[in-house]
Amino acid sequence: MVQFPSPGGSNRSYGMGARQIYESLREQILRGVYNTGSQLPSSRGLAEELGVSRTTVTAAYEQLAAEGFIDVRQGARHRVASSLIGPELTANPQKQAGPGHLSNYGERLRGARRWPDYLPNRLKIDFRYGDLAPSDFPASVWKRTMNAVMAQRPARLAYDHPCGSRRLRQALQGYLWRARTVRCDPEQIVIVNGSQQGLDLCARLLLDPGDSFVIEDPCYRMAREVFASTGATPVPVEVDEHGIQTEQLAGVAARLAYATPSHQFPLGGVMPIARRHQLLEWARDEGAYVIEDDYDSEYRYDISPVPPLHSLEDHGAVIYLGTISKTLSPMLRIGYLVVPVELQQVFETAKQFADRHSPIAEQESLASLIESGSYENHVRRVRRLNGERREVLLTTMKRSFQDRIAVQGAEAGLHVVIWFNDLPRSRETPLVEAARYAGLGLHPISPLYHRQSGAGEADRVGLVMGYSALGIRQIEKGVEMLRDVVAQL
Amino acid sequence: MVQFPSPGGSNRSYGMGARQIYESLREQILRGVYNTGSQLPSSRGLAEELGVSRTTVTAAYEQLAAEGFIDVRQGARHRVASSLIGPELTANPQKQAGPGHLSNYGERLRGARRWPDYLPNRLKIDFRYGDLAPSDFPASVWKRTMNAVMAQRPARLAYDHPCGSRRLRQALQGYLWRARTVRCDPEQIVIVNGSQQGLDLCARLLLDPGDSFVIEDPCYRMAREVFASTGATPVPVEVDEHGIQTEQLAGVAARLAYATPSHQFPLGGVMPIARRHQLLEWARDEGAYVIEDDYDSEYRYDISPVPPLHSLEDHGAVIYLGTISKTLSPMLRIGYLVVPVELQQVFETAKQFADRHSPIAEQESLASLIESGSYENHVRRVRRLNGERREVLLTTMKRSFQDRIAVQGAEAGLHVVIWFNDLPRSRETPLVEAARYAGLGLHPISPLYHRQSGAGEADRVGLVMGYSALGIRQIEKGVEMLRDVVAQL
Repeated sequence: MVQFPSPGGSNRSYGMGARQIYESLREQILRGVYNTGSQLPSSRGLAEELGVSRTTVTAAYEQLAAEGFIDVRQGARHRVASSLIGPELTANPQKQAGPGHLSNYGERLRGARRWPDYLPNRLKIDFRYGDLAPSDFPASVWKRTMNAVMAQRPARLAYDHPCGSRRLRQALQGYLWRARTVRCDPEQIVIVNGSQQGLDLCARLLLDPGDSFVIEDPCYRMAREVFASTGATPVPVEVDEHGIQTEQLAGVAARLAYATPSHQFPLGGVMPIARRHQLLEWARDEGAYVIEDDYDSEYRYDISPVPPLHSLEDHGAVIYLGTISKTLSPMLRIGYLVVPVELQQVFETAKQFADRHSPIAEQESLASLIESGSYENHVRRVRRLNGERREVLLTTMKRSFQDRIAVQGAEAGLHVVIWFNDLPRSRETPLVEAARYAGLGLHPISPLYHRQSGAGEADRVGLVMGYSALGIRQIEKGVEMLRDVVAQL
Repeated sequence: MVQFPSPGGSNRSYGMGARQIYESLREQILRGVYNTGSQLPSSRGLAEELGVSRTTVTAAYEQLAAEGFIDVRQGARHRVASSLIGPELTANPQKQAGPGHLSNYGERLRGARRWPDYLPNRLKIDFRYGDLAPSDFPASVWKRTMNAVMAQRPARLAYDHPCGSRRLRQALQGYLWRARTVRCDPEQIVIVNGSQQGLDLCARLLLDPGDSFVIEDPCYRMAREVFASTGATPVPVEVDEHGIQTEQLAGVAARLAYATPSHQFPLGGVMPIARRHQLLEWARDEGAYVIEDDYDSEYRYDISPVPPLHSLEDHGAVIYLGTISKTLSPMLRIGYLVVPVELQQVFETAKQFADRHSPIAEQESLASLIESGSYENHVRRVRRLNGERREVLLTTMKRSFQDRIAVQGAEAGLHVVIWFNDLPRSRETPLVEAARYAGLGLHPISPLYHRQSGAGEADRVGLVMGYSALGIRQIEKGVEMLRDVVAQL
């Protein structure tokens, strides 16, 4: 899979130059993304994919060839030069450069594999998880509330409280109680820039190098990465259809556990109440914090709710994390933490040090939406829309593949996991690449696993299929394309 | 100076309860903000200041008295109980609580003194530095561009590039070259949530516990705090009227230096070219990075510009930091780093880990303002407005105090430093408190010093007087109030 830096952010019309293509490929070759001697995309295919002229791609390839990175063969696909790539290069692709040194944190980030899930692409249909359909966004209500907020003139333009708009925290207090039975004071709420900042603040405040943290396996990769970036060691605990296997926690020493009990990411299990109690008991015995990531709990189909961990315990071990990235938009960058009372001061200071506070206007606008009931109306509406998308995806997949697939985690959330019973794991890369050339974005589950093998289901090809950015017709078309790609594999 | 948590963020009408007042006072007593036996504000004065009823304040005082924190005397101001406050309490006021442990970073933040410069207040006139006048904000242009941005519908709602909107980075590239002779590629620009996040990313990526960093003395306090929060040790270097005394750097070993060469904060010196070269030479010899905080370089009066450090060197030792908090609004939370090429990847990853990316709409709106020339028109306009404010402040201060004051750092920026030649440092607290009771906000320079004494000018009372949030009439009125307070001191 060829990965390129964003050519344009939201300014999608910006064209990518030969130099950028050259640099991206060069970096990926140096990082060992391609094996020695492996084929590169055809210049025509790559040009189409990137929406640039073939000449541009050819220029990039010529530069790579001139520098000895690739072998060019007339009439055949170019290959990564077999002479070039030795293990010493892939092991430490970036040399220490520049006048200074990095911190240990910086060195860990230098080594971190890029996780470019923000890249725009030219795919016809993409089942990438986490994206939303712009048509779902309540554009006119949002515009109205933003304009009302912008029309307000504060006494001075000045910094706000680090934990965010008091009005939004009060509105969220009510919302969390109504929607999630989470009880807290507004003072316990910290408005953050999306759940990512919530995870990062938790990581910084709770983990030191050499500490351990419990993480689901498979898991939300950015959580694992951000906790590991502190220098702490992940302790992966296996996940089944009921979420993390809490019985495996006995004897595990760790400073914190990260869990997605409402809808395990990516496998989709809803954690039963007994396991919730087991997790909390472990945390109490261990003196550990539990970070409860409730990232998409608004989406629940045909099942009854289970109370969040946060409402099940009262001694301050749970840090609750919510977001509007799955209900309104990930581009707004608003999330919230509910922190135990004794951690309020350090989270407030950490947020102040991190960036003073989150931008005001969107916070006030969201507060207004929650106060008026528009937010909850909107959530009901998108729940229905996503329920329809899910239904279509499941029906067409079943019709197209019948017993060849197994579906996991469809009771909640905005994605399902599809296992291909008759496709061994070795077919994953060919499937994904063939799909990409056909204009279809597929996202395998395997990079989300910590254990590399031995897990029964992970020996098959598994896909994380997000549907929330697609229309009904696009979902049907995408499944058709998938059927054709699998047939030709 | 009594400090209270924000009662309402931007929701200013929210009233403060007795409990909040009680808790704030109790915390401040425990933290040693008040000396043993020192007087507390009168209940009437405090009630007025906070805009609450006197009964509310009395209830808070009664609770504090009942718990033995204060001594209540009929007909006299209450005092902090002399029996209570021992050094052991002030040294470690917060006990370790909760089920878990904090990281070393968390423990450092637990000990960090709060720096609540975001508190709303009921003052009639406040010379707090860093606030802007809402009437200066280009509200209609901003509203128009935000509406244009909100009307655009992207292909999907998805994460953007961690370094921010490509369009904004391109616009900033041009702006930085035109306005600041800073040359860079858009790929070197990282959009951050205000300069605070820029400082925090630098701190995390460049400093380890036990490292040293050079900091100006006196300095921008949040910079010192955020660098020190990594566990690194500040090496304060004295500042004179030409900025940091670079000749004192000889032999200093440090990983980075933080400097404000365009307009030293707070003393206001503009660093001459020779010192700039000396600083860069030191960095080169030491293998250190220099963080050039160009926080208010748009404001320059009667003096010719000196090129930024960034344009004076070419081997990648300078990290340039800019912000729109002083030109548009601190509430928008937009700043930008220009990082050396070899640090691009780690800054990109650090920003992605920190919060994925900054919110999109404001970035696009700012890009539009820069592209159309509105931003630079606006900067010219606010430069003129702030020049007028500065003129009025300097004239009225000179008229009111004549030779009793010395003015420092008036050539640039949005504040001046006023030294009271005949007020010894011991008069600082009485002056500030008396002003506060009169409804006037004054901000002494002393907390910005690292060295506690021995510095000549710091033996006098010095005030950092920001004028950018005030109208001409308010400035005149504020100076009048100041004159009265000083006269009655």
